[in-house]
Amino acid sequence: MSKNLTKRSEDYSKWYNELVVKADLAENSGVRGCMVIKPYGYAIWEKMQAALDTMFKETGHENAYFPLFIPKSYLSKEASHVEGFAKECAVVTHYRLKMAEDGSGIIVDPDAKLEEELIVRPTSETIIWDTYRKWIQSYRDLPILINQWANVVRWEMRTRLFLRTAEFLWQEGHTAHATKNEAVAEAEQMMNIYAEFAENHMAVPVIKGLKTETERFAGAIETYCIEALMQDGKALQAGTSHFLGQNFAKAFDVKFTSKEGKQELVWATSWGVSTRLMGALVMTHSDDKGLVLPPKLAPIQVVIVPIYKGDDQLDAISERIAPLVKELRAKGVSVKYDNRDTYKPGFKFAEYELKGVPIRLAIGQRDMDNGTFEVARRDTLEKETVQADEIVAKIEFLLEDIQKNIFKKALDYRENHITEVENYDEFKEILENKGGFISAHWDGTPETEERIKNETKATIRCIPIDVKPENGVCILTGKPSKNRVLFAKAY
Amino acid sequence: MSKNLTKRSEDYSKWYNELVVKADLAENSGVRGCMVIKPYGYAIWEKMQAALDTMFKETGHENAYFPLFIPKSYLSKEASHVEGFAKECAVVTHYRLKMAEDGSGIIVDPDAKLEEELIVRPTSETIIWDTYRKWIQSYRDLPILINQWANVVRWEMRTRLFLRTAEFLWQEGHTAHATKNEAVAEAEQMMNIYAEFAENHMAVPVIKGLKTETERFAGAIETYCIEALMQDGKALQAGTSHFLGQNFAKAFDVKFTSKEGKQELVWATSWGVSTRLMGALVMTHSDDKGLVLPPKLAPIQVVIVPIYKGDDQLDAISERIAPLVKELRAKGVSVKYDNRDTYKPGFKFAEYELKGVPIRLAIGQRDMDNGTFEVARRDTLEKETVQADEIVAKIEFLLEDIQKNIFKKALDYRENHITEVENYDEFKEILENKGGFISAHWDGTPETEERIKNETKATIRCIPIDVKPENGVCILTGKPSKNRVLFAKAY
Ligand SMILES: [Zn+2]
Ligand SMILES: [Zn+2]
Repeated sequence: MSKNLTKRSEDYSKWYNELVVKADLAENSGVRGCMVIKPYGYAIWEKMQAALDTMFKETGHENAYFPLFIPKSYLSKEASHVEGFAKECAVVTHYRLKMAEDGSGIIVDPDAKLEEELIVRPTSETIIWDTYRKWIQSYRDLPILINQWANVVRWEMRTRLFLRTAEFLWQEGHTAHATKNEAVAEAEQMMNIYAEFAENHMAVPVIKGLKTETERFAGAIETYCIEALMQDGKALQAGTSHFLGQNFAKAFDVKFTSKEGKQELVWATSWGVSTRLMGALVMTHSDDKGLVLPPKLAPIQVVIVPIYKGDDQLDAISERIAPLVKELRAKGVSVKYDNRDTYKPGFKFAEYELKGVPIRLAIGQRDMDNGTFEVARRDTLEKETVQADEIVAKIEFLLEDIQKNIFKKALDYRENHITEVENYDEFKEILENKGGFISAHWDGTPETEERIKNETKATIRCIPIDVKPENGVCILTGKPSKNRVLFAKAY
Repeated sequence: MSKNLTKRSEDYSKWYNELVVKADLAENSGVRGCMVIKPYGYAIWEKMQAALDTMFKETGHENAYFPLFIPKSYLSKEASHVEGFAKECAVVTHYRLKMAEDGSGIIVDPDAKLEEELIVRPTSETIIWDTYRKWIQSYRDLPILINQWANVVRWEMRTRLFLRTAEFLWQEGHTAHATKNEAVAEAEQMMNIYAEFAENHMAVPVIKGLKTETERFAGAIETYCIEALMQDGKALQAGTSHFLGQNFAKAFDVKFTSKEGKQELVWATSWGVSTRLMGALVMTHSDDKGLVLPPKLAPIQVVIVPIYKGDDQLDAISERIAPLVKELRAKGVSVKYDNRDTYKPGFKFAEYELKGVPIRLAIGQRDMDNGTFEVARRDTLEKETVQADEIVAKIEFLLEDIQKNIFKKALDYRENHITEVENYDEFKEILENKGGFISAHWDGTPETEERIKNETKATIRCIPIDVKPENGVCILTGKPSKNRVLFAKAY
C-alpha cells in the first residue's frame, strides 16, 4: 500500500488509473482489455447489485438467464442493431483444441469448425427476443418483465478499468408489452429507478434526459439516460433505458393475440447499468488521498484501529471494543477491527483513507483512561473526541451525514458546472476553460451535432426531461431552435 | 400448463426432460447445448446462491471476478489440465464482423484475426494463478480465499438441461496457502460445506468421498466429492473440491517468502458447484405430478387459492386473507395469493403441484363460514382442515416438517440402495436389476476400473471418507484390497 498517488490537479486521468489499482478495486489482466475485479472492488459491486436487484423486484421484475453466445444470423436480424455492434464482436469459430501433429504444442483443431459462428453477447436483445417468440401467444402472456445479471463483451480498442473494458459485468432488463404506452412507461420507470439509485445510494447527482438520434442505442426508438458529471468536468453516462418500439418483435416475428382477437406485434424495452458505475463512483467523490465511498455502498463502514504498546494494552483495548463491535453489527453496520500487529497505526490510517472507509475510530491509552474514542470522518477528514456512551449514536449520525454531505458536494459542483451559452465562441471558451455541461441551442440535425463533435469533441449528452421550451438559434448554424440541450465532453 | 407428464416408471429420462420444461425451470435455446434458465428456475438458483454465498463468507472467503477469456498459452501451461479440457473448448479467433463485399450479409472480418486465440473459460485455474503470481510475495499475503460466481463453457456433444450443458453457471473457489496441511484442510472444509448445503438446504443426502485417480479433476492431486443418488438408481456428482498441490504454482511460477525467509511454492485448492445442482434437486424429490421442492429453496413456499363465485365472494376472501399474508411475510415466509380470475381453482391446484409449491391453502365459502382453511402439503399430498387461529403455526410446522420429510425419504431410498457385493456376477446382477451404489472391493488399479466401466458402464463414484479398513479381494481380478469403494452408473 503506497500513498504516492498522483494529484487530481496534476493529471486527473493518471490519478484515476492509479487509484483504482492502489485501492484494490481492479487491475488489468493478462487478457487484453479484460479486467480482474479484486475482492474490495467486487464487494462494492455486490452492494450495488443488491440495491438495484431489490428495486427491480419491487417493481415486478424477475431474474432469468440467457445464453452467452448469439448465432451470427440472430445478430443480423435487426439491421441497425448489427451495424452498431459488428465492429466490436468476439467471435467463436471453433469448439476444440488438439495437440499439433509435429508436437509443437496445442493448436485449434481445424476439424472442429462451427457451421455458424457464435458471437459472445455484446447485449442480449436478439437471443432474448428469439426466446420471447416461444413464450408469447396471447395478451395474457404479457407483460414479460425480466432482468439478467451477466457478463458481456465489446471488443473496445482503447480500454480503461471500469470505464471501458472488453468484458464487463452488467444487468440488462428486457421487457415485452401489449401497448406502446406501457412500454414507454416502463422505459421511463427504469430511468427513474436508475436516477434514484445513483443519487440515493451512490450519492451521484444525475440529469435525466433523452438521447439524440445519433447517440441512441442501436435498435432503439428512444433512449432515456442518466448523465453524471465527474470532477474534471467531463460527463459520464451512468445508465440507459431504451424504448425499442416494435423493432425486435418485427425482426423476430413476435406477435400476440389481443383481447379483441387481433394479431399484433409486441412492444419492447431494454435497460442496463454496468460496472462502469464503479468508475463514476470513484471519479465523483474521491480525492488526492484516495477513495471516498458513500456509506451505503462501503464494504467497511467503520474501521477501528487500536493504538497500543505491548500485548496487555492490546488485550485491554480489544476487550473494550468487543461489545461496541457487537452492537454496531447488530444494527447492520459493517465494522472492521484491525488488530494486525504487523502494521503500525499510521500505516493503517493511510490504508483506510486510500480505501475510502467512511468512519475511522482510533483508541489509545489516553482514550482508555478517559473513556473516549477519536473519530475521523473520511469525507471532510475532520477528527473529534467522542465519549464512549455517545459513540454508537455518533456513528449512526455520521453514516447518514457523510452520505448526504458527499451528495451535496457533488451536486454543488454539478450545479456550478452547467453553463448557458449563446454562441459558438462562448461554447468553445467554456468547454476549454471551465468544462462541465453546456446548455445551448441546437438546430436538431445530426449534421450539426457531428460537426460540433468533430470540432470540439463535445457531444450532446441529453435533452433533459424537464427541459423548458425556449426559442433560440443554433450556436453553430443560427437556425431556429425550440429548446436548449446539454453538451459536454464525456467518458 | 399441461399435466401430461410422462410417469417416472415409464421413462425416467423423459419424465425429467418434460418436467424441467413444463415446470418452467429451463428450456433449450436456439444455441446448441445452451439453455435458457427461466424465472422460476432462476429463482431457485438464486436461493441456492444466497445460502452458499453466506456459508462461503462465514468461512472467510471473498468474491471477485476474473476474465471470461483465457489465452491458449495459459491453458497449455499445466499439462494434465489442458489435456482434460482441450477437447471441449469454445475458441474465439476473431474480434470483428463486417458486411460482405458482395452484399450477401454479415461475415467474420478476416482482417480481425487475434494473434493468440482465446478460450472461453471452462474453469479458471490458469487465469487466476497467473493473477495470483502478482498478488503473492510473502507469507503475509497468504492465505488468499476467493470465490467467483460465473458462467463457464465446456463444449459437450450430448447435452441435457441442467445436467450437462455447453454453458452453465457455477461458483469456483480458488485458494492459495502457505502449507500443504492448510490447503488440504481447506479442500476438506469446502467438501463439508457442500455436504451441509446439499443435506440441509436441498434435502439431498450425499456421500462424502475421494475420487480415484482416473476420476480426478484435471490438474488435481486429490479430488473430494459429494455423491447423491437419484430415484432411478443412478448417482450424481453434486460438488467437488480439489487439493491441487503445487501444480498451478509450478506452472505459473507462484512463490512466496516464508517466515524463515525461504522461497517456496504456493499450495492451492479449487472447488465448485454448478446449475447441475438444479438437476439433482429435481430428480431427488419430484414425482409423477411434478416438482417437489424443499421449503428452504422454494421461490413460493405457500400459495393461497380462493374458491369463489362472483366478485363479492372474492372480495370477502381477499379481505380475510390480507392480514394472514402480511403476518406470514413478516415472518419471512414467501406467500403468493393467486386471485387471477382467468383460471379455475382446479387448474391452479395442478399448476402449483407441477411447480412444487410446498404448501397450498384453499379457502371457499364454507371455510369462510367456519373460519377454516384447507391445507395441502405437496410432499405427501395430504389435506386437512385447519382453524384460522392455528394456521400460522401450522404453516411454520409444515415448512420444517416437509423439509425434514423429503430428506428422510431420500435418505431411506439411498440407504436401501447401497448394496455390498462379493463378486463380479453379483455386481452385474445388482447393477442391472436394483441400481444404486454398489460397495465392492477393487484392486486399486486404473486398468481394473476401466475394464469394469467398459463392461458395465459403472464407475467408481468415490472412496467414502468414513470407509472402514476391510481385507477383501477385487471383484474383477481377485487381487487383494484393503477397503470397499462405491460403484454406480452416474449422470
Ligand atoms: Zn433506494
Ligand atoms: Zn445451512
